[in-house]
Amino acid sequence: MNYRAVIYILGWVLVIEGAFMLLPFIVGLIYSEQQGFIYLAVSIATMLIGAIAVLSKPKNMNFFVREGFAVVSTSWIFLSIFGCIPFIITGEIPSFTDALFETISGFTTTGTSILTDVEALSHVSLFWRSFTHWIGGMGVLVFLLALLPMTGGSHIHIMRAESPGPTVDKLVPKVRETAAILYIIYFVLTMLEIIFLTVGKMPFFDAVTITFGSAGTGGFAIKADSLGSYSPYLQWVVGIFMMLFGINFSFYFLVITRRFRQAFKLEEVRNYISIIIAAVAIIIIACAVNNSMNVIDGNSWTFSDKLRHTFFQVSSLITTTGFSTFDYDKYWPEVAKMVVIGLMLCGACAGSTGGGIKVSRLTILFKTVKKEITMFFHPKRVLKIKSDNKVVNHETIRSINVFFIAYTMILASSVFIVSFDGHDFSTNFSAVVATLNNIGPGLSGAGPACNFSFFSPLSKYVMMFDMLAGRLEIFPMLVLFAPEFWKSIFRK
Amino acid sequence: MNYRAVIYILGWVLVIEGAFMLLPFIVGLIYSEQQGFIYLAVSIATMLIGAIAVLSKPKNMNFFVREGFAVVSTSWIFLSIFGCIPFIITGEIPSFTDALFETISGFTTTGTSILTDVEALSHVSLFWRSFTHWIGGMGVLVFLLALLPMTGGSHIHIMRAESPGPTVDKLVPKVRETAAILYIIYFVLTMLEIIFLTVGKMPFFDAVTITFGSAGTGGFAIKADSLGSYSPYLQWVVGIFMMLFGINFSFYFLVITRRFRQAFKLEEVRNYISIIIAAVAIIIIACAVNNSMNVIDGNSWTFSDKLRHTFFQVSSLITTTGFSTFDYDKYWPEVAKMVVIGLMLCGACAGSTGGGIKVSRLTILFKTVKKEITMFFHPKRVLKIKSDNKVVNHETIRSINVFFIAYTMILASSVFIVSFDGHDFSTNFSAVVATLNNIGPGLSGAGPACNFSFFSPLSKYVMMFDMLAGRLEIFPMLVLFAPEFWKSIFRK
Repeated sequence: MNYRAVIYILGWVLVIEGAFMLLPFIVGLIYSEQQGFIYLAVSIATMLIGAIAVLSKPKNMNFFVREGFAVVSTSWIFLSIFGCIPFIITGEIPSFTDALFETISGFTTTGTSILTDVEALSHVSLFWRSFTHWIGGMGVLVFLLALLPMTGGSHIHIMRAESPGPTVDKLVPKVRETAAILYIIYFVLTMLEIIFLTVGKMPFFDAVTITFGSAGTGGFAIKADSLGSYSPYLQWVVGIFMMLFGINFSFYFLVITRRFRQAFKLEEVRNYISIIIAAVAIIIIACAVNNSMNVIDGNSWTFSDKLRHTFFQVSSLITTTGFSTFDYDKYWPEVAKMVVIGLMLCGACAGSTGGGIKVSRLTILFKTVKKEITMFFHPKRVLKIKSDNKVVNHETIRSINVFFIAYTMILASSVFIVSFDGHDFSTNFSAVVATLNNIGPGLSGAGPACNFSFFSPLSKYVMMFDMLAGRLEIFPMLVLFAPEFWKSIFRK
Repeated sequence: MNYRAVIYILGWVLVIEGAFMLLPFIVGLIYSEQQGFIYLAVSIATMLIGAIAVLSKPKNMNFFVREGFAVVSTSWIFLSIFGCIPFIITGEIPSFTDALFETISGFTTTGTSILTDVEALSHVSLFWRSFTHWIGGMGVLVFLLALLPMTGGSHIHIMRAESPGPTVDKLVPKVRETAAILYIIYFVLTMLEIIFLTVGKMPFFDAVTITFGSAGTGGFAIKADSLGSYSPYLQWVVGIFMMLFGINFSFYFLVITRRFRQAFKLEEVRNYISIIIAAVAIIIIACAVNNSMNVIDGNSWTFSDKLRHTFFQVSSLITTTGFSTFDYDKYWPEVAKMVVIGLMLCGACAGSTGGGIKVSRLTILFKTVKKEITMFFHPKRVLKIKSDNKVVNHETIRSINVFFIAYTMILASSVFIVSFDGHDFSTNFSAVVATLNNIGPGLSGAGPACNFSFFSPLSKYVMMFDMLAGRLEIFPMLVLFAPEFWKSIFRK
C-alpha cells in the first residue's frame, strides 16, 4: 500500500476542513457569539496539522482500489474526530462519544441527533452542525479532486470509493472536471433552495441551515419539531428540493447540456419518481381506510394538508434526509409504517447525495431474479441484464450482490449488538436501519419525535460505524476489518 | 414444457398420498374413532383420481429444470389441497382456509397452527397432522424417486427441486439409490427416536406423533403446552434428535460406510454444531446477566434446567422444528430474542429435513464477502471459494446469491402485506420469518404460546405461499409467477 500518498491526501482533507471551519467563525462574528473564536482556534490547529502532511508531496502518487478505500475510510474518520472538537470545547456537547456521534451523523448526512434540546445550541454550532451535512453530501474528497491536480488513475479510485452507487458515471472524460461539474450543480441547487426559502419569508439563518440539511439529504433541524412549524409553502419547497437532491446528478448534467430526451429516459430516475408517487398514494389510501391523519394534534387536516405532509415525509425518507413535519410514528397505521421502512431501505438514486441501498441497485437485483426465472424456461439462451439499454457488466452485478450480502450481515450484527440495551425489536431494528441508511429518525423509541441519547455508548459506536459504512457504501469500512490492512501497516 | 410427464408424476403423488392416508384409518380402528372412515373414503378417492393420471404412461419422460420445478410446486399444492379434505369433512377444522393452512404448515414442516385447542382433536386427525410432517420432511417426490423407475435426467431435476440446500449431493451415482438410502436413514432415525421415547415411558401415541414432528423438523405438538409437560429425560431425547435430524444426511451415509474422518470433517456439520454451542452459551450468559430464567411459572430453575430448556429451544429453532418447553418469549431478555431470530434465519444443514437459509449457504455467503475484501489487496490473484476443500463452482455461487436476494424480497413483500392486519412490527416480522423458514412459532403476538388463528385470510394465504416457498427453497414457487409458465399452459 502506498501510505505516503494516503497520508498526503489525508493532510489535504484536514486543511480543507480547517478552511471550512472559518465559516462558523464568521457566523460567530455576525451574531457576536464567543463560540466563534473556538472554531477559529480549532480551524487553525486543524490546518496546521494537515499542512505538516501536505508539505512533502510524495513522488509516487499511484492509487489503486485499496488505496482509494483506505484514504476514504481514514479521511472520514479523521474528518469526524477533528470536526467534533469544537462541540466539546464550547461545552455544548461535553461528552466525546456524543460529540463524535453528532459529527459522524452530520458528515454522513444521517441526521440522527443525541441532543435533547437542539434549540439551546449557539448559532455558531448550529451552523457548523448543518454545514457538515453539506460537506458530507457530495463528499470532501470529491471536493478535493476538483481542486487538486493528480496523476494516473488516482482520481477515479478515490471518486469510486467515496461516491454512492454501484458504478460511477464520469460525466466528462476527466475525473477532475467531473468532480468540478458535480460541485457546481450542487452549489447552484443549494443557492436556488436558499432563494426560494427566503422568498417564502423564512429567516435567512434558518433558510441556510435547512438548505444544508436538505442538500446533503442530512436532516439536522434547528428546531425541536423539525420542520413542523414552518408555513405550507416552505414545507412544499423543502419537500421538493429534498426530492431533487435525491436524483442522480447525471440527470442535471444531461439537462444542462440540452440532452433532454436522454435525461428523461434515465431508468433510475423514472423508477425513483414512480416509487415516490406509489408510496404517497399507498399511505394516503391506507390512512383513509384506517381513518388516520384526520385530526392531528387537535387540528383537522384537509386533503391538501394530508398530501403535503405525506409527500414531505416520503421525500424525506426515500432521500434519507430525515426531516419531518409531524410525528408520523404516532399517527400512521402499520401499513404506512411498513412503507416507511421500505423507503428507508430503498434510498435515493446513485450519484445523488442520498443514502440507502439505491434505486439502481434494487433495480438490478430485481432484474437478476427475473433473469434467473427466465433461465428456467430458456436454459440455453444467453441473457444479459441491461440498464438504460446498456449491458450491465458481470463485475458490477457481482459487486452489487456482495454489497447486498455484506449490507444484510452488518444490519443483522448491528441489531444484535444494539439489542443488548434491552429496547424493543422495532426500536433496535429501525434505529440500525436509520443509521446504516443515513436517514436519521426511525420508528417507535427511535421515532421522529425522539433522539438517540438514550442508547448506550456501545450502541452509539456501533451506529457510528453503521453511519460511516452506509455513507461510504460498506466496502471502504470493511477494509478496516481486513487483517491484510493492519498487517501491512505494522510491517511498514 | 412436457406436461404429460408432469401430470403423470402428479398422479403418482396422489396415489402415494392416498396410500399414506390409510394409516390414520388404522389409527381410527385402534381408538374406535369414526373419523377414521372419513380418512378411508378420502384415501380411496385420492388414489382413484391419481390412478387416472397414472394409467397412461407418456412415452416421452424427459425432464428438464423447468419440469422439475413445475412438478414439485404443483405436487406440493395438490398434496396440500387433498390432504386438508379430511380436516374439513370431520368438521375438526371446518374452514377451508384454515384447513389448508394447517396442512401446508404440516407438509412444509412449519408447524404453525391455527388451532386454538389442539387437545380437542381426534387421535386420527392428530396422527394425520403429525404424519404430514414426516412425509414433508424428506419429501414425497424423493419417496417416489426411490420407488419409480424413470429414464434419463428425470430423477435428478426432481430431486434438485425438492431437496433443501444449494447443491444436491448424490450419495451414490444413481439418484434412485440415493433416494432410497436417504429414506432408509430417515426411517431408522425415526424408529430410534420412538424407541428412546417409549423407553422413557412416553405413551406410544405421543412418542409416534412427537417423533414425526421432530423427524420432519415440523413442530406440531399434540398438547397445548407443546413439550412442556414431559419429563426432563424426554425433553433431552427430543432436543438431541431434533439436532440430529438437522444434520446433513451425507454425514450419516459417511458414518455408515465407515468413512469417519470424512464425516467429522464436513464443514457444514462442524459449523452447525458450533452455532448451537455458541447460541446456548450466549443465551445462558445473557439470562444470567439479566437475572432471567431463574423463576419460571413459580418454579426455581437449577443450572441443569436452564441448560436443558435452552438447548431444547436452540435445537428446535435452528432446525426450524418449533417445539417448545416453555414460553421463552415471555422470559428471555431482548438479546436472547435476537439469537432466536438469528437461529430462525440461519436454519439447519443442507440435505437434512430442516428449513431456513441453511448453514452451508450462509458459510458461502460469508466467504463471498471475505473473498471480495481480499481482492482489494490482491486484485490480480485468482481466488476461488472452497467448501470441504472443493472449489464451489460459479453457478452455485450465483444461485446462492440469487436465492438470497429473492428470499429477502419475498420476506419484505410478505411483511408488507401482513402489516395490513395492523399488528405490531415484531409480530408481523417474526410471523413471516417463522413461516418462510418453516419454523412455527415467532415472537410477540406470534410467540410460542400463541397460534396464528388471529391473522386475516389474506395474511394466511401469504404465509401459505411463504411456507411452500421456504420448504421448496423459493425457485419452484417463483416459477408460478413467470408469465412463460402460464403462457405455455394456455397455449397448449
